[in-house]
Amino acid sequence: MTVQEIAERLNGTVEGDGTIEIQALASLQEARAGDLSFLHSDKYARQMQETKASAVLVSEQWASPTTAKALIRVPDPNGAFATAAPWFAPQEPVRKPGIHSTAVIAESAKIGADVYIGPWTVVEDGAVIGDGCVIEAQVFIGQHVRIGKACHIYPQVTIREGCVMGDRCILHCGVRIGGDGYGFNPVFQPDGTIRVDKIPQLGIVELGNDVEIGSNTTIDRARFGRTRIGNSTKIDNLVQIGHNVQVGDCSGLIAQSGVAGSARIGNGCLIWAQAGISGHITVHDMAQVGPMAGVSKDIASGEYVLGAPAVPKREFAKSLMIPREVARLKEEVKALREELAKLQK
Amino acid sequence: MTVQEIAERLNGTVEGDGTIEIQALASLQEARAGDLSFLHSDKYARQMQETKASAVLVSEQWASPTTAKALIRVPDPNGAFATAAPWFAPQEPVRKPGIHSTAVIAESAKIGADVYIGPWTVVEDGAVIGDGCVIEAQVFIGQHVRIGKACHIYPQVTIREGCVMGDRCILHCGVRIGGDGYGFNPVFQPDGTIRVDKIPQLGIVELGNDVEIGSNTTIDRARFGRTRIGNSTKIDNLVQIGHNVQVGDCSGLIAQSGVAGSARIGNGCLIWAQAGISGHITVHDMAQVGPMAGVSKDIASGEYVLGAPAVPKREFAKSLMIPREVARLKEEVKALREELAKLQK
Amino acid sequence: MTVQEIAERLNGTVEGDGTIEIQALASLQEARAGDLSFLHSDKYARQMQETKASAVLVSEQWASPTTAKALIRVPDPNGAFATAAPWFAPQEPVRKPGIHSTAVIAESAKIGADVYIGPWTVVEDGAVIGDGCVIEAQVFIGQHVRIGKACHIYPQVTIREGCVMGDRCILHCGVRIGGDGYGFNPVFQPDGTIRVDKIPQLGIVELGNDVEIGSNTTIDRARFGRTRIGNSTKIDNLVQIGHNVQVGDCSGLIAQSGVAGSARIGNGCLIWAQAGISGHITVHDMAQVGPMAGVSKDIASGEYVLGAPAVPKREFAKSLMIPREVARLKEEVKALREELAKLQK
Repeated sequence: MTVQEIAERLNGTVEGDGTIEIQALASLQEARAGDLSFLHSDKYARQMQETKASAVLVSEQWASPTTAKALIRVPDPNGAFATAAPWFAPQEPVRKPGIHSTAVIAESAKIGADVYIGPWTVVEDGAVIGDGCVIEAQVFIGQHVRIGKACHIYPQVTIREGCVMGDRCILHCGVRIGGDGYGFNPVFQPDGTIRVDKIPQLGIVELGNDVEIGSNTTIDRARFGRTRIGNSTKIDNLVQIGHNVQVGDCSGLIAQSGVAGSARIGNGCLIWAQAGISGHITVHDMAQVGPMAGVSKDIASGEYVLGAPAVPKREFAKSLMIPREVARLKEEVKALREELAKLQK
Repeated sequence: MTVQEIAERLNGTVEGDGTIEIQALASLQEARAGDLSFLHSDKYARQMQETKASAVLVSEQWASPTTAKALIRVPDPNGAFATAAPWFAPQEPVRKPGIHSTAVIAESAKIGADVYIGPWTVVEDGAVIGDGCVIEAQVFIGQHVRIGKACHIYPQVTIREGCVMGDRCILHCGVRIGGDGYGFNPVFQPDGTIRVDKIPQLGIVELGNDVEIGSNTTIDRARFGRTRIGNSTKIDNLVQIGHNVQVGDCSGLIAQSGVAGSARIGNGCLIWAQAGISGHITVHDMAQVGPMAGVSKDIASGEYVLGAPAVPKREFAKSLMIPREVARLKEEVKALREELAKLQK
Repeated sequence: MTVQEIAERLNGTVEGDGTIEIQALASLQEARAGDLSFLHSDKYARQMQETKASAVLVSEQWASPTTAKALIRVPDPNGAFATAAPWFAPQEPVRKPGIHSTAVIAESAKIGADVYIGPWTVVEDGAVIGDGCVIEAQVFIGQHVRIGKACHIYPQVTIREGCVMGDRCILHCGVRIGGDGYGFNPVFQPDGTIRVDKIPQLGIVELGNDVEIGSNTTIDRARFGRTRIGNSTKIDNLVQIGHNVQVGDCSGLIAQSGVAGSARIGNGCLIWAQAGISGHITVHDMAQVGPMAGVSKDIASGEYVLGAPAVPKREFAKSLMIPREVARLKEEVKALREELAKLQK
């Protein structure tokens, strides 16, 4: 699509070379030749003089030098950019209802209406898949798994026996639902050696409605009962959820965070990247656990904690002042010592 | 199963509504309507007045108000709960010996007696699989891999060429055995550019007997020789084991911990969640590395370390007192300054 | 191969039992019976008296007691070891060009010359695979993905629609390219509840030439435009790269590190294990982020930072002195207090 064509579709006006062919969209900083960008706010004005974008969406009154070869003037550059974004997005695969001939579906499995099942996918005995689901290629769905309506399971997800999920869930590639929880009993033997017994993990994982789970995240089945993720909770990539963890509704767990066995996370909580939550504790509603924070005690509702061990945000900020305070104390003590010496003479 | 039926199987007596249908087991805190729970100890007495469990296993003398609709009195509620747990567990898949028609098995592969191989699994040239193994769906077993007896390989595990494991190992979904270790040589070129050469990774991974490895954990092949995991060592989910790492027997590595290349971990060690072990160091027998600890020096036998960089547990606890001590010092120095000023007048 | 045979191939001379059959190579510390090792430098002399290696490569003048049953004398033991290493390496699988009969290749996909495609691999509509690629078993290649020449994609990798990579890239097992970035909008509803809207992720992932990516690493597609990894950048296992991240050329990201959305990492940077980079910041060329460091501000070119929040290496080292300094201050203040008391009398 040329700059001119884009301008017309956005009801904008071109300044500069309207014949340039646009390949992709990008921010001013990330853009390269062939990209269309946008000036988000005057804060980024300096980037207009360094951008490699071929064209930039700007407001009607914008006037300043730029390295771009063309400008498209529109009333709302942000909105126009959002409008144009899908035109350049990779075509989303159309998954027409139907079961690929290579899928292995157990006879006792119940497949809903308008379901797509991709190549090499395995659906075992007694599994139930709701209407309108898209189950992509190379997925493993174990015995008696129950999947609600309109879920999207990306390639190479595994869901082990007995696990359950609600409607409209999205599971990205490599998600592992229902692996055994980590539970072992070391038994000290009379001869001095240790035997390590496995504690059976007899529960399941239960996901609510509208849960989304990022690539390669792992959620273990409960020791007994259920590991549960509440409605509309969104989990990022490479997150670990231990057995019997209970997460409430509308919470977020960012990449590489981990929650140990039997911990409880409330509603509307945010667990930031690489944070860790100890077992058997509670993070109450609307609380936030900052990046890399290590939580070993209950967190009160609405609190924001940081550090390892985690403390309230303000306390953490104060602790960062310690090196400066110690340096100042050293100087003061040295001065006191000198003045004292004078008096002692 | 009704409350009454459960009570009969456990030789207990029902108090309240015995006709309630029980769906699942859960702790007092996690339970919902239709669940059976148990009073683990008097410590949890308060939960008896808040639980949503329909029925609770309690001792014969327990007497206190509860929100549950029924009680089942038994001599040992913990034991009774453990007895009942399997009755409500998802039916474990029966994997009858046999090779699924869609599995691709190389002619030169040797498959033992009573082995199950699931759909879409690939077993390459010269691989050896011991008697009684269960190799589930969509597994990849590379050339000349040797797997001992009675191992259980869950769906979508990959084991690359030449790797070896003992008997009764359990590998959960998405485990990656034998990926190339991270080894590169940056070569500064005469023209100022850098070329990054790959260092060949010529070794293997060797797992002992009774090793269990959690979902999506990665264990890299050695630069040469072997990366080794000892007998009865249990590894949790999303753990990273670098090339040439040597882990002893009966050790545990908890979720998201990582061990860098050529590090050595002894017998009976515990590496807690999200901890990191630097390359080329030794964690001696029975030592523990606490959650999120970062170990960059050898750890003595039996020691428990915390923090990053890790220090002995007691030293770490003392370091947490620093903010309070600095605040106290500031006050004391201020007081000294005032008293000194009085003397100076 | 016997010790004698190895010595002959290396033009060395045997001392001790030349008939021993060598199975594998290993370092002095890791070796067991049947292994050949080497004395890297005199620093490891003590290990010569403890090694379980059957034979050791040593220099011509080396003279000291050893537990090994045989020595092979060569001018350069390190070089000789490197020469011998491939003789004991697991046979690398030969992937002859050809498409396995079980692979599902869309008609509109374009497969280059001399390409190997393994069993159960899926290549969707419009995908392009360059000459000489090895695409192993059970791989998923989405619609319109473009892969350059001579790439090696290991089993069970997924590459979602529209993503692009250059030549000679290596993707290890379980790598996830092009998952949706983590982007959600919580919408507070009039009735007090929260609805969590998904922000469409309309961009792609673009890998340069000679990129290598470790097992189970995840790289998310851009919100719009591209998440980009530059030429010759090498990424380890279990690393998380968020949407719109831009990594330059010849950089390294070590295991379990994570980079949040829209962060920029320059050329020749090193991000050590378990480090975290916040969103929207820049790590400039040749900078290093130490193990477990948490970076929340731009890092200057060539700087080495440590700690969370990360500070320059020297500053971090100084902060480790704080406990000792506080202890010393406490003593000094106590002494001052005592001397002052004397004067006050």
